[in-house]
This record gives sequence, structure tokens and C-alpha cells, in this order.
Amino acid sequence: MRKVAIIGIGHAKFGRRQDVNVCEIAFEAIKPALEDAGVSAKDIEYMPVGTIGMWYEEGLPAVVIADYCGLSGVGLARFEAACASGSAAFFSGYMAIASGMADLVLVVGVEKMREVDTPTAVELIGRAGSYLWEFENFGLTFPGYYALHATAHMAKFGTTEEDLALVAVKNHHYANMNPYAHLHEEITVEKALASPVVAWPLKLYDCCTICDGAAAVVLASEEKVKELGIDTPVWVAGLGFSSDSGNLTKRQSYVGLMATVWASQKAYKMAKVGPEDVDCATVHDCFTIAEIMAYEDLGFCKKGEGPKLIREEQTYVGGKIPVNMDGGLKAKGHPIGATGVSMMVELTRQLREEVEPRERQVPMKNYVALAHNVGGTGHYCYVTILRR
Amino acid sequence: MRKVAIIGIGHAKFGRRQDVNVCEIAFEAIKPALEDAGVSAKDIEYMPVGTIGMWYEEGLPAVVIADYCGLSGVGLARFEAACASGSAAFFSGYMAIASGMADLVLVVGVEKMREVDTPTAVELIGRAGSYLWEFENFGLTFPGYYALHATAHMAKFGTTEEDLALVAVKNHHYANMNPYAHLHEEITVEKALASPVVAWPLKLYDCCTICDGAAAVVLASEEKVKELGIDTPVWVAGLGFSSDSGNLTKRQSYVGLMATVWASQKAYKMAKVGPEDVDCATVHDCFTIAEIMAYEDLGFCKKGEGPKLIREEQTYVGGKIPVNMDGGLKAKGHPIGATGVSMMVELTRQLREEVEPRERQVPMKNYVALAHNVGGTGHYCYVTILRR
Repeated sequence: MRKVAIIGIGHAKFGRRQDVNVCEIAFEAIKPALEDAGVSAKDIEYMPVGTIGMWYEEGLPAVVIADYCGLSGVGLARFEAACASGSAAFFSGYMAIASGMADLVLVVGVEKMREVDTPTAVELIGRAGSYLWEFENFGLTFPGYYALHATAHMAKFGTTEEDLALVAVKNHHYANMNPYAHLHEEITVEKALASPVVAWPLKLYDCCTICDGAAAVVLASEEKVKELGIDTPVWVAGLGFSSDSGNLTKRQSYVGLMATVWASQKAYKMAKVGPEDVDCATVHDCFTIAEIMAYEDLGFCKKGEGPKLIREEQTYVGGKIPVNMDGGLKAKGHPIGATGVSMMVELTRQLREEVEPRERQVPMKNYVALAHNVGGTGHYCYVTILRR
Repeated sequence: MRKVAIIGIGHAKFGRRQDVNVCEIAFEAIKPALEDAGVSAKDIEYMPVGTIGMWYEEGLPAVVIADYCGLSGVGLARFEAACASGSAAFFSGYMAIASGMADLVLVVGVEKMREVDTPTAVELIGRAGSYLWEFENFGLTFPGYYALHATAHMAKFGTTEEDLALVAVKNHHYANMNPYAHLHEEITVEKALASPVVAWPLKLYDCCTICDGAAAVVLASEEKVKELGIDTPVWVAGLGFSSDSGNLTKRQSYVGLMATVWASQKAYKMAKVGPEDVDCATVHDCFTIAEIMAYEDLGFCKKGEGPKLIREEQTYVGGKIPVNMDGGLKAKGHPIGATGVSMMVELTRQLREEVEPRERQVPMKNYVALAHNVGGTGHYCYVTILRR
């Protein structure tokens, strides 16, 4: 297997971006990624695009994005794994180089969700589960799915609404320092607890934002890294992928996501590291309870001890395992297809030790970082371990 | 790069399949593919699913298909490259094994288009081009796109309506012998020419069918082929991918698809063969003119000589280069995501020399076969070369 490095990163401003269309917001990520890598659009051989893309008329957007950004002629496809679409695209980009099919790949994640109103967006996202069973019969949308996880976790481990709010407080704190984040607003536990209930125990501030965004990374083979004289390549050390039943009655556990456990085990094995070696992580906090379950399922603490980790502020910069130093899906925003790629952008910045302001920079010991991207409630899961 | 073999194939009956839903029709292909390979669902590590899937409520169907077919837990994603979606999935399946990320992969192509009526289907397919420019401004749908190619080819090379009809006659002839084909009806040139005009010069019998279908292949590493004692592995010898502008005014040529030329050159180079070495091919004949252009763009004859090839019946079994011995998209049917995978099923049967009835079996000289799958009008293109 050939080695694969991230050599260029680019990130659009996340938020309600009614000033741009899907091609233009993708360009905001693609242009800086190519410049950062020191390559041109013509050098790219393969471009996987992670996007769900059911928000607007352009039903199959990969080709128009490629065209707009000067990439006509590249190998091209769109990848969808619900909210893990960006990671599914990243995985194929990784394999293209690892297998020897390409030396230079541009992975793009993009979503333009704000073309529809919030109720329509929530309804469309609801289709990412098992439509006919969970959605049609039981009326489940994603706040409902994760509220079920939250109540199960509360019942079994005594997790509280305050614990959930603490996750929101942390992620708003870091998003406020991230210029690319959707929300720039510090919040308090009191404010989070007082916000309107969406699906109890989840309130407005427990939910990630529905927004527009894009992120891009350039991947290169070892030969290409040398040829281009890249001085800070960030290597893909491990990749794990898994899925789980869309029928919730078949799930082994409801206080965690088995797909996360399985995918992370694969990634740790491939990277030859354990959770204790990870310097920092971006995890899939589409709802605050999801971040707490991720702490546990990824092995950063034992099952049931996730709330303790956030109460002790161990997932802040300077803690045992800093998580979502970019604000996470929660406050940076969750433009679906962009999310997995945005995680790679943040971790690459962290591993290069170039994060500004420095308050967001994690001190590196092992130079190992982990990205965790979930589709649905563990319907899909991709875990990626990066190393400098 | 590790070697990759097709070791199992399965194919659902193509057609108006109102007796099954998307999971059930996928199962019709997945079950025989696993049985043919002698493996179980639990052995599969990664399952790329090629499907556009905008025809029904289940917006993100990969997980429900996996679930229904006993594949929960596998690495999972949906792939879309317009009408080349099946090949985009196959390409990622190939790379998963070639890179060493997996040893056993199930590639699925599926589409359930007959959930909508024909005008709606044509409108939705029209979005596979450049929606805002070609579709919204000029009202182009795919019969119109390919009619423009046909008139350009007629003007430059004297191609006739009869030449187009000859392609339809051949593909109906073979589909009539293929139990999995949508249409079982021999036609004549006269019948084709007398059929209603869809977009001149294309008539009803120049157009592929909008239908439901699924196909599946099991891919394995060389180690797995040995371990399982597979006696007729069919190896993936070459893969090429390309794309072209969605803005038709930017195209270099209108009498062919440059994406086909570029993708086939890559595939030939990787497989170390030329067009003269190919024993048989499945090409993307969404419209009859597309098959004639493919003859030329793939190098089976010179540019402009495609009509001569069909007039001389050189693309029938026994001719210089048999093409679409399964009836092609034209008459076997074109359930979008299934098409690229269906091509692999047919070519594997041909290379194994097990096609029934024997009248459809191509005599093998070099045991080299080529699949050509286009998305849009060359917006995407994948060319795959198989070898026994």
C-alpha cells in the first residue's frame, strides 16, 4: 500500500450563504486547497465530491462543480453516505493514491442546504435513516433519533441535561475563535438549558446547525510529496469504515454506536496506535449526546464515563483529549457533505501547528489526530487517523 | 498494486418491476452473486452501491439495501456519476482491494426508476447535465443532447437514419436471447424508422428503455481467489476514468465524446492492450448514435467509420468486434445505477465462455473484454478492461 499525504487544505465560510451557489462555495474551498498544495487544477487526476445534494435543482452537481473550478477531464464521482458523505469521498480519494491509480487527488465536500427552509431540511435529512420503517411509520427525524440515544444514556449512566449543555458551551467557545464557523456566539449552561426544546432532552443548543459550506483537501503520493518539496505533509495513518442496521430494533446497544466502535478499531489497528496516543480529535457532534457517546465509543474513556470527561473539561485544549477545537458540527456548522472534509482541514492545521488564534492550538505529543464522521445514527461510520 | 478479480456475478430481471421495491430487486442480484462466489454476506468488507436514487421516498438507499441483504456492518457508500454510477462504484470497489484496504468487496448497481412516470423520469434524468445552463435555458433533455450529436455526425460523415436503426436491430436481436433483458422483441429497420420521432433524428427505437434493475459483482484479492479455490477468476486489467465540461459550448468535438477517448486511453495503457486486442465490448448505447460514436472513440474503427462497422455487421457475434451482445442499454434496458455493473456481469460470462444460448457467446482469442460506461453526454466516463 502506497503512503498518502494531505498536502493542501481549503475551507469556505460556513453559514447561511445566500451570496453563493453550490459551485461558488465549492470554489471558496478548492482554490485555497490547490494554492496551499502548490498545484494547479490541471494537475489533479481524480476528484471525489462528497455531497447529498437534494436541496436544489442541480440534482447531480459533481460535474458542474468540476467545470466551474477548472477541473473538467478529471475522474469524477459524487459520494453519499448520509452525514458521512465527505469521509466516504475522502476514503475513495485515499484509495486512488494508495492503490496507485492516481498521484494527485482533490477531495471536495460541499452542501448548500439553505436553499430550503428548516422544516424541509429536517424532513429531507430524516430520509437518511430507514425511510419506510422509522420515518414513515414512527415519524422519526434526527433530533428524535438522538433524543432516544440521550434518554437511554441518561437512564443507564445518570447523564444529565447539564452534561449535554457543557458540550454545547465548549463547542460554541471554540467556534467563536474559528473564522470559518457558522456561529460566533459564546453561550452558558443556563442559556443552553433555557433554549426551546426540540426533542426532549435535546434543546435548540444541543443541535448542530443546518447551513451551507464546503471544504477541500489535496492528497498526494509519497513520490509527489517529494517532487513538490512539501515540507509539512500530514500522512493518513489509518482508516476504518463500518455501518449498522437502519432498523433501530436490530441495534445491539442504544447508549452508543457500534459502527463507531467497529470503524475505530479498524483505524487504530491500521495506524498501530490506540486511543491513548491521540493528541486531538474531531468527532461527529450532530447533537451534544453524540459527542459524549463518541468519547466512549472511540475509547477516550470507558462506556458511561463520557459525561465525566466533559465535566472535568478534559476535552478542552490542555485537557487529556481535546475534541472539536474548531467548534464541531454543533457550532462550526454541519453542511452535510462538507463535514468529513472539514474535519481533515482542521486536523491538518492542528498537526502542522499553525492554528490561529493559538488558544485553539492543541499541544502535540505524538502528532496523532483522529476524525470521526457518522452518517445517520451510525448507519454509516468512517474513522480516519492522521499523523505528521 | 494488488490484483483484483471478479469472482461472483448476479443480475436481476430488468424491466417494469412493480412487483419489487429497491431492496428486493437489489437482493435478486446480490444473492446469486454471493452464491456464485461461494461466500456469504458476512464475509464482505466493503459495499459500494451505484445508484442515483431520486425516484422514490428513500432518498439515501445504501443502508436499507445493506440491511435487507444481511450486510449491516460493511463499509458502505452510495456512488453517483450520472449514468456511469455503477462504474464509479465498481472503481471504488476495485481500489479497495488494489490498495489493500479489503480482500472481499460486493459492488451493487441498482435503480428503481419506474416509481415515476416517463415524463418525470426524462425530466429528472435531464438534471444529469448542466441544469442551470443547458436544461433551464435551452430545455435540453437527453434525447435532445444525443440528437445534437446525431445531426453533427450525419452532417460531417453522411451517417444516415438507417445506420442508427441498424444498431437498434442488432441490440434488440441480442436482448431477445438474454433472459435478464427488458425487451424481448426482434425489430426491423423499417419498424425502427417508422417509430415515433422523439428528438429528430432519434425515434422511439433509437432510445434506451427507462426501467428497473440491479446487478452485482463480488471482487476479490489474489490471495482470496486462491483461498476460495476460484477456478475462473476474471481479472480487472485496466481502468480509465475521465470527465468533460457540462457546458456544451466548451466541448472540443461534437461527433464524439472526448471523455471516452481519454478514459479508454488510460485503460488501454494500464492493461497494456490496444483496441485490436479486445474480443468483445459492452458500450454505452443510451441512444443508437452513442454506440456508433463509441466504436470510433474507443478505437474499434477510425472516426467517421462507425456506420460502416454496423452496416457490415462487424459488431455482431462472429464479426471483427462484437458489441453489446446482451442487448445493450438500448434493449436490455438502462436502470441507471445498475448499468455499469450489468456490463461487468455480461463480460464476466463472456470471458468464462458460459453464455447461453451459445449464439450470444463471443469466440475468445485474447480473452480481453472492455466495458464503456458514460454519464451524461461524456460528462463522466469510465472504461474497464477485463481479462481471463
